[in-house]
Amino acid sequence: MDRPLPQLEPDPSLPRRVTVYEVGPRDGLQNEATVVPPAVKAELVRRLAATGLGTVETTSFVDPRWVPQLADAEEVLGLLGEDGTGSRRPVLVPNECGLDRALAAGVGAVAVFGSATETFARKNLNRSVEESVAMFAPVVERARAAGLWVRAYASMCFGDPWEGPVPVEQVVDVCRRLMDLGCDQLSLGDTIGVGTVGHVHRLLAALDAAGIGPERTAVHFHDTYGQALANTMAALRDGVTVVDAAAGGLGGCPYARSATGNLATEDLVWALDGAGVETGVDLDALVGTSVWMAGHLGRPSPSRVVKALSGG
Amino acid sequence: MDRPLPQLEPDPSLPRRVTVYEVGPRDGLQNEATVVPPAVKAELVRRLAATGLGTVETTSFVDPRWVPQLADAEEVLGLLGEDGTGSRRPVLVPNECGLDRALAAGVGAVAVFGSATETFARKNLNRSVEESVAMFAPVVERARAAGLWVRAYASMCFGDPWEGPVPVEQVVDVCRRLMDLGCDQLSLGDTIGVGTVGHVHRLLAALDAAGIGPERTAVHFHDTYGQALANTMAALRDGVTVVDAAAGGLGGCPYARSATGNLATEDLVWALDGAGVETGVDLDALVGTSVWMAGHLGRPSPSRVVKALSGG
Repeated sequence: MDRPLPQLEPDPSLPRRVTVYEVGPRDGLQNEATVVPPAVKAELVRRLAATGLGTVETTSFVDPRWVPQLADAEEVLGLLGEDGTGSRRPVLVPNECGLDRALAAGVGAVAVFGSATETFARKNLNRSVEESVAMFAPVVERARAAGLWVRAYASMCFGDPWEGPVPVEQVVDVCRRLMDLGCDQLSLGDTIGVGTVGHVHRLLAALDAAGIGPERTAVHFHDTYGQALANTMAALRDGVTVVDAAAGGLGGCPYARSATGNLATEDLVWALDGAGVETGVDLDALVGTSVWMAGHLGRPSPSRVVKALSGG
Repeated sequence: MDRPLPQLEPDPSLPRRVTVYEVGPRDGLQNEATVVPPAVKAELVRRLAATGLGTVETTSFVDPRWVPQLADAEEVLGLLGEDGTGSRRPVLVPNECGLDRALAAGVGAVAVFGSATETFARKNLNRSVEESVAMFAPVVERARAAGLWVRAYASMCFGDPWEGPVPVEQVVDVCRRLMDLGCDQLSLGDTIGVGTVGHVHRLLAALDAAGIGPERTAVHFHDTYGQALANTMAALRDGVTVVDAAAGGLGGCPYARSATGNLATEDLVWALDGAGVETGVDLDALVGTSVWMAGHLGRPSPSRVVKALSGG
């Protein structure tokens, strides 16, 4: 079939509406080997927004030495102009220096990127979990004082390549410290894609018991072990209504033996359309955008829906 | 991580134990372009059984003109000897001629393959749904008289490439006619992979209301639109305990623009191990088998777990 099944009556175990938080231009592209010109990145954000996606994370003000792909953050935002501002166009800021650049660029929302494990905090942020929370404190405080919307990413919430399974209590503790800084939203990341549905349920229940309810929590799954959509649907049944995904599964190369891309936005929208959950996203337009982007990357999209609908 | 997360406490919303019905050697291989020698097929069945898989469908006694890949059914079963008999080594039989061949080969279980839609019945079986049920009647009767275990596949239970969405009432009607012949188990097939979780729930509820409960029902999802695992987990929450899957996602070429493979057994076992659901399957041995088979097919496995665990 070249169309999803018609929208059916809403499923009472799922929310009526879900906001897709599109991370392709940031989390997706930063894991792509092919360097994409700033004009293409700006066009990608514009096209994604035009499909009806609620939120599009546009870029990252990380040190260009660490993520060369996103060294052009100012240029991309300059090209976007008003299309890159407002509370629905967040940028990632690793620290106060990143925040300064983001404020100078006129953004309306930022995200900080924490870790639930000490080892990944050391490797990714070069400091302990406690030191990283201390580093984020003035970032969140100044961002809020400037009227910005603030998201906190917690990465490695399920498993960690060095530490193995991550205890739920440890994740809750880190998340509470991040949210206590005054963030508006928490995004729970399964950075290496190892989590499963029961684990998702237990973590969300523990967070809720600690005062961080599903209305403030987003989920962010990578499809490394094929679990991303099943885990997302489990989170929606627990009341989560914001889901991170990357158009076309950006960041996951279909030829790599270990594909580590985000949940593909198209595969998510197909599932939600079928369940009668509103997203506001035009699936055909989204597939068209991913096919166009795959052309710039020189390889097909790893999204199953993109493959199936683009004429396979 | 090179291991799934440790088995956690059982999830009360899922069954304690699931039987994986392995369809790789039949449904998987019949969709592979590379012709596999009979000795490799027999070795595949032996290796799969050694991983602890509950049931392995070994081959099909379909007319060799239609499925050349499986024209060697007798030879494969001859090579398997006692490893290819018993109620846990079913073969597909399209009609009485196929049953005669299966009985002569000494099998202990057979499966007939019906369609929920008229168009696919015409295209696949060259007769109407009613005529196909009439064709299966003596097959099931004779198989049962010979003491065989009998499964009924119902294909196109969610969408059909020609007819679009398939009404739940129509699927229930066809399934009831198939089960009324005296079959032991029903396998609900989403042959083109378009179904979503709410649709799965509605179909299972309607079947249960019609007297075909989840204890007699298996699910069979293809991952064409990335929904296979999410749909399977939804079915397990509704009480289903038998799941069809193909080792390594056999039948879905990772390079094809439209991958139409079965749910990969490894991705399923990862999800069930994480949820504390017993399968009896040794995941490492299964991944090793899929890597070995991928070598014979000359291309990597499309299973995410196989990719991730076989060395990324």
